[in-house]
Amino acid sequence: MLAALNRERSSIKGDVGIVQTQYASWDAPLRLRSGVEFGPITLAYETYGWLNSRRDNAILVMHALSGDAHVAGRHHASDRKPGWWDAMIGPGRALDTTRYFVICANVIGGCRGSTGPSSIDPRTDRPYGLRFPVVTIPDMVAAQARLLDRLGIDTLHAAIGGSMGGMQVLELAINHPERVRLAIPLATTARHGAQQIAFNHIGRQAIMRDPRWRGGDYYGHEPPVAGLATARMVGHMTYLSEERLQRRFGRGLQWTDAISFKLETEFAVESYLDYQGESFVNRFDANSYLYITRALDYFDAADGYESLVDAFRNARARFLVASFTSDWLYPARESEELVAALRIARREVTYVELPSIVGHDAFLLEHERLTPIVSEFLAEM
Amino acid sequence: MLAALNRERSSIKGDVGIVQTQYASWDAPLRLRSGVEFGPITLAYETYGWLNSRRDNAILVMHALSGDAHVAGRHHASDRKPGWWDAMIGPGRALDTTRYFVICANVIGGCRGSTGPSSIDPRTDRPYGLRFPVVTIPDMVAAQARLLDRLGIDTLHAAIGGSMGGMQVLELAINHPERVRLAIPLATTARHGAQQIAFNHIGRQAIMRDPRWRGGDYYGHEPPVAGLATARMVGHMTYLSEERLQRRFGRGLQWTDAISFKLETEFAVESYLDYQGESFVNRFDANSYLYITRALDYFDAADGYESLVDAFRNARARFLVASFTSDWLYPARESEELVAALRIARREVTYVELPSIVGHDAFLLEHERLTPIVSEFLAEM
Repeated sequence: MLAALNRERSSIKGDVGIVQTQYASWDAPLRLRSGVEFGPITLAYETYGWLNSRRDNAILVMHALSGDAHVAGRHHASDRKPGWWDAMIGPGRALDTTRYFVICANVIGGCRGSTGPSSIDPRTDRPYGLRFPVVTIPDMVAAQARLLDRLGIDTLHAAIGGSMGGMQVLELAINHPERVRLAIPLATTARHGAQQIAFNHIGRQAIMRDPRWRGGDYYGHEPPVAGLATARMVGHMTYLSEERLQRRFGRGLQWTDAISFKLETEFAVESYLDYQGESFVNRFDANSYLYITRALDYFDAADGYESLVDAFRNARARFLVASFTSDWLYPARESEELVAALRIARREVTYVELPSIVGHDAFLLEHERLTPIVSEFLAEM
Repeated sequence: MLAALNRERSSIKGDVGIVQTQYASWDAPLRLRSGVEFGPITLAYETYGWLNSRRDNAILVMHALSGDAHVAGRHHASDRKPGWWDAMIGPGRALDTTRYFVICANVIGGCRGSTGPSSIDPRTDRPYGLRFPVVTIPDMVAAQARLLDRLGIDTLHAAIGGSMGGMQVLELAINHPERVRLAIPLATTARHGAQQIAFNHIGRQAIMRDPRWRGGDYYGHEPPVAGLATARMVGHMTYLSEERLQRRFGRGLQWTDAISFKLETEFAVESYLDYQGESFVNRFDANSYLYITRALDYFDAADGYESLVDAFRNARARFLVASFTSDWLYPARESEELVAALRIARREVTYVELPSIVGHDAFLLEHERLTPIVSEFLAEM
């Protein structure tokens, strides 16, 4: 009956409507990969659709570096934009909320409601800053496993995510094998290589060399917006293909018809990057950027195993791996490495390399290409 | 006799030995592309070999963003490193100093002896800072044409340069057609597209957002080393291929065997980038970085013409164009665009795409591949 109602609504709107962020907290410390016992922990999360009576229709969406729990819908009717993956989630969409109970939680280390370096340390009543422990992708996933416990979900129908979200999907499937039946890592990699680490390093250095960073204790002061904006601009470049930038901006000027012989922003692509940097500093914490990029660099899906193949032997899920042709941050060959290892480990895996000109961001933008592939994979069980 | 002596020396050493930077100055202002009349101007330059009595054996080497006049040899026997293209210049090398008179001048706007933003403004007796006018690639080339006048050289045997040096070669061949017989642009482009502008913009923003930049008036104070180091690290990434980084560094750690759960430099590639940033700030002026990258972004070989083909119709030189397979800053297709336009304009052109895994830096490093091709092209006349 609810499903029927939703289907009807979907024919009109297709979206999940007004949603609310929820919070789950634990006093018991989490043992982090570093050995540190850390707590208390709060996770901000959102859910869409309804958990069925068998509690077996849940899908966990795992977000990327700058994502958050608000993956679909609007918090207020007046919100200019919906959640970050709205086009994928709702009645009749890839993650069909008339069939599935969709969950998304902000990662620990983040700054969008879950415990991170900008959270108040209860021991001092001040923000953690660099007293926050270094967290890893496995730690982020362990915290989300606690959330599944809290929600009474033993086994997810699926876990899906792109980029860092894909790393979390791999970690969940490998080290929490009983908790997920379908694993969908998109536009991701088994581990960072030198170039990926290098771009993250430049972003971290830009933040830490900003005098306003103050060793991480900038809360209550002017934050290191210059460093964070630079970090975001560097990161943003790795999300875009050269072709996409060229088609959209080329050598176009922003305000004038002719170059004006000055050093400041003048080309349209410069103005676009400035906007990306400035809008990011309004919604993201510089210390979280340091911690989360470090988690990305540290991640290795094979950690604790002899090899990636050996790691995947521990997994039980069926896999759908997708890459995008113009993604140069996590190029297709890195997804192919995942697929090769899965096959050697005799895991069931479907692989698609999707054509796209938009670069790494394709996992966020190419919902029309992703929707039929993901819907079908989710329904196949 | 000198040639024979040099050839003998070359069989022992092959290099140009101890060299000295020279300086040429002009009080008469140079009319810049912006319309500004700017002077006085000094160019720092070096020469190797001997100008013959017909004054027709000169080769002008044009340097890239961070280059300078010191292209070969050592200033002092104790110098740890020779000039930046030493392997290409000397008796028996690609630019054979037993045959050719090789010249290289620091560009205006630079900070290595030629007039630039860190030079003293004679009107104020203080460094120009941002009162230095915005200079373009055509302005840099016009200043070097003055140097050729001073040296009594009407027509160069050849002009050669990679990256920004290649842009200068194009500008010289197109707009000073009578001054060069052989033009050798390496690893370059007719104009910057959006991605190339974007990376330069990030570098400029990193510098200008550094509080120590002080609107360009940091001379006599602590310079904006944080911003300049970030700019260099971003630029440096575009000079390297992913494969080169991965082969050299991979996920190797710099000082330890296991990750130590911290945010600071720990991977070898991070330490390498830190070193690149730090060594650059010791030898380069932040304002020069702003001005020179702006000149790169502004350059368009077709400026003042209907098209690139139309521009090349003005050229008289024969061209040798070379690109490198792993160069993603100025990829081979951008050299191919030059070659296509040259062919339509019915100019003589030889094109080689050289295999290399090192990225854009190949024009500096692949001297073994370049030497036979360049030597033969120079000797063909």
